[in-house]
Amino acid sequence: MKQLLILGAGRSSTALIQYLCEQRQQYHWQIVVADASEQTVAVLKQQYPTIETQQIDVLNEEARNRIVKQADLVISMLPARFHIHVVHSCLALQKNLITASYVSDDVKKLRTDIENKGLTFLYECGLDPGLDHMSAMKLIDEVKAQGGTITSFQSSCGGLMAPGSDDNPWRYKFTWNPRNVVLAGKFGTAQYLFRGRYKNIPHHHVFKRLSAVEVPDYGRFESYPNRDSLKYRDLYGIHQAETILRGTLRRPGFCAAWNAFVQLGLTDDSYEVRNLENMTYADFVRAYLPYSEDSLVTNFSRYIGTDVTSELMDRITWLGLLEEKPIGLTKASPADVLQKLLEEKWQTEPQNEDMIVMQHLVGYQLNGEDLLTTSSLAVTGRLNHLSGMAKTVGYPLGIAAKLILNNQVSQAGLAIPVHKEIYQPILQELEGLGIVFQNATRSLVSAYSH
Amino acid sequence: MKQLLILGAGRSSTALIQYLCEQRQQYHWQIVVADASEQTVAVLKQQYPTIETQQIDVLNEEARNRIVKQADLVISMLPARFHIHVVHSCLALQKNLITASYVSDDVKKLRTDIENKGLTFLYECGLDPGLDHMSAMKLIDEVKAQGGTITSFQSSCGGLMAPGSDDNPWRYKFTWNPRNVVLAGKFGTAQYLFRGRYKNIPHHHVFKRLSAVEVPDYGRFESYPNRDSLKYRDLYGIHQAETILRGTLRRPGFCAAWNAFVQLGLTDDSYEVRNLENMTYADFVRAYLPYSEDSLVTNFSRYIGTDVTSELMDRITWLGLLEEKPIGLTKASPADVLQKLLEEKWQTEPQNEDMIVMQHLVGYQLNGEDLLTTSSLAVTGRLNHLSGMAKTVGYPLGIAAKLILNNQVSQAGLAIPVHKEIYQPILQELEGLGIVFQNATRSLVSAYSH
Repeated sequence: MKQLLILGAGRSSTALIQYLCEQRQQYHWQIVVADASEQTVAVLKQQYPTIETQQIDVLNEEARNRIVKQADLVISMLPARFHIHVVHSCLALQKNLITASYVSDDVKKLRTDIENKGLTFLYECGLDPGLDHMSAMKLIDEVKAQGGTITSFQSSCGGLMAPGSDDNPWRYKFTWNPRNVVLAGKFGTAQYLFRGRYKNIPHHHVFKRLSAVEVPDYGRFESYPNRDSLKYRDLYGIHQAETILRGTLRRPGFCAAWNAFVQLGLTDDSYEVRNLENMTYADFVRAYLPYSEDSLVTNFSRYIGTDVTSELMDRITWLGLLEEKPIGLTKASPADVLQKLLEEKWQTEPQNEDMIVMQHLVGYQLNGEDLLTTSSLAVTGRLNHLSGMAKTVGYPLGIAAKLILNNQVSQAGLAIPVHKEIYQPILQELEGLGIVFQNATRSLVSAYSH
Repeated sequence: MKQLLILGAGRSSTALIQYLCEQRQQYHWQIVVADASEQTVAVLKQQYPTIETQQIDVLNEEARNRIVKQADLVISMLPARFHIHVVHSCLALQKNLITASYVSDDVKKLRTDIENKGLTFLYECGLDPGLDHMSAMKLIDEVKAQGGTITSFQSSCGGLMAPGSDDNPWRYKFTWNPRNVVLAGKFGTAQYLFRGRYKNIPHHHVFKRLSAVEVPDYGRFESYPNRDSLKYRDLYGIHQAETILRGTLRRPGFCAAWNAFVQLGLTDDSYEVRNLENMTYADFVRAYLPYSEDSLVTNFSRYIGTDVTSELMDRITWLGLLEEKPIGLTKASPADVLQKLLEEKWQTEPQNEDMIVMQHLVGYQLNGEDLLTTSSLAVTGRLNHLSGMAKTVGYPLGIAAKLILNNQVSQAGLAIPVHKEIYQPILQELEGLGIVFQNATRSLVSAYSH
């Protein structure tokens, strides 16, 4: 009987645990879930009596090694900073490892060690990163197998609210770390390739450089560029592509309103706002606007360059950002103030459904013809049961775990799911779980042809 | 015979050394100038045979202490990072010290030591900081002496080219460290107080928040906000001022054109530009613009929001920024590329004259009346002889040295020239040297009165 150890049982682990518990009946695994929280462990035990639960401090090397030692495969759902400890235990005790986190610089240094021991450490195996790699590589490999050449690759993903639950002017609520959302775009320049040209977009213009995205049955979205598009050239082997652009999806109008925050400087996290303890949200905004005797809404809309009655201003005023309401913070950065307000307003309700949206546009030449394949995915789920996020993160991880436990993965060493033997069975099983990409290919009339 | 030691004999020391050499005839000082460069020392010796010169590595403690020991007063013209070593020698050997540099955090820690030893360490005694403190405090103290209350303080300073030498569309050339000019505004948020409100302007909007400045006989300028205006509230004791704003002066139109660089992201110093070795300046600019089949000048002007024939575009095209000329750099940040181009184009000619411009606007209430005093200074000088910069930095330092050597400064400890006993004699003597502020006071009609 093989033992499967899951480290971390937070909200994003729900679908993973449920999937593995269903599979264990067929494969007779022993499933062990370890978490730092006694309460999480107790709730889990009640929900899934067949699994073994452990409360553990993962930084305690002895305790960590004790449970890793008994496992045949470890799935780490821990926050990224804990991974390296798990990696060291898995290396020392010769255990395979799966995680949804990005390959970190410290694990890259252990690449040779992992290979030499014949272990498989499968990283980036959730949604984004994870499902993005798998679905993109399937498209790319299919083109190459036909003898085609990839000429462009554009890909966007977003964690949004499902239709019906997107019931505010932003059509957005927080379904993951609010801090990361508030600081998005603040971490550097967006670098990508577009029609053969390298593009470098400073953070204060990122929310203006949008692409329109349409997903059948789900409507329109906009995509703003991510920081790191160029690394996908090597990762996906698309060296002849003249466009490589990855983006994040929002509903139309979101980015223009968010850009107002960026223009004012409200997403800055580098200093404490002076006199904050005496400020209302309106005072806070005034600190960023030119002096004016006009009303705040007039001054704000003029500075941003929009009408006072525009949808952009609806989004701003709906947040209460222009109201004389005390902020109630003393020492905080502008980003902290903005985050406090957004956390109040972008709260989800228990009955809400979230929605994961992903779309790839793969341009290629085949037999002298320019073609474009559009591959779209939308997955919804109830936040208080199995959210779209939990399913799209957990199912790929769970299926990967099954493949490795069943010795169906020959790929050894430090890997991500860009290999056909990994992505193909995962994507195939995902279809049965309702995670289905809709593909359409059409002839592409080049912008250069006229 | 008192001995005066000048550490550092670079271009900014010329006026200081000339001034002190003239004064020594009256006061019988011995002047010692020490510099790291043998050549600088040799040239100086030839020009001023009466001074003693030494070639010295200021980081060599023994050598440094040997020359400091013999001095009665030390003037440090060294780059800021060397100062702390000089400070320690002066403390150990009980010598007074003068410098034009900002009070640093490390010297602040030694404040009590300096006071306890009864020494005078006079910092920020050049132009900016230096002359700005002195001339502002004179105005402020005069208002207070009459029983008035300071209600607003705005002050701007700039190192520019004199009329006739400002012979390019920017009316600007580099007269000091190009790197600091290129990175201006990149180091954080401009914080100031305006009509009772704290203002926080993110770097990407700093060059849009301009004040108009006019100096009699010298025409119009524009002033963009500095990072640090609020510290002057305590420094100058102007706690009732509802406006405190310090800025940097440029000729009109400069900031709008510079803002184009900021908007594109060309002043970013945080990453290396990809594919730079194959790029022309035009390619470099394209990396920041949206894709377009239009000409680069059309695309650029549309993105910036100006006409292709505007003066802004004259400034951009004059630089050659839109030309298909190879850059000739391999590993460099956007700011490095911009700096390379500007250094070629904004070079001064030997016959050029520079110009220092400073203006204070001091608003105050006196006997129920709202008044505004405008105090303006413009100082020009030949770059290859005594530049405006060298005079406005060197003369205040030289006069301060004379005051200290003649025991006319009672202020002990770590000081800056905000004290009347220091600024009054310096400003008075500066007038005889051609550094004269023009003052005008008028009744101020409040913006609130109608």
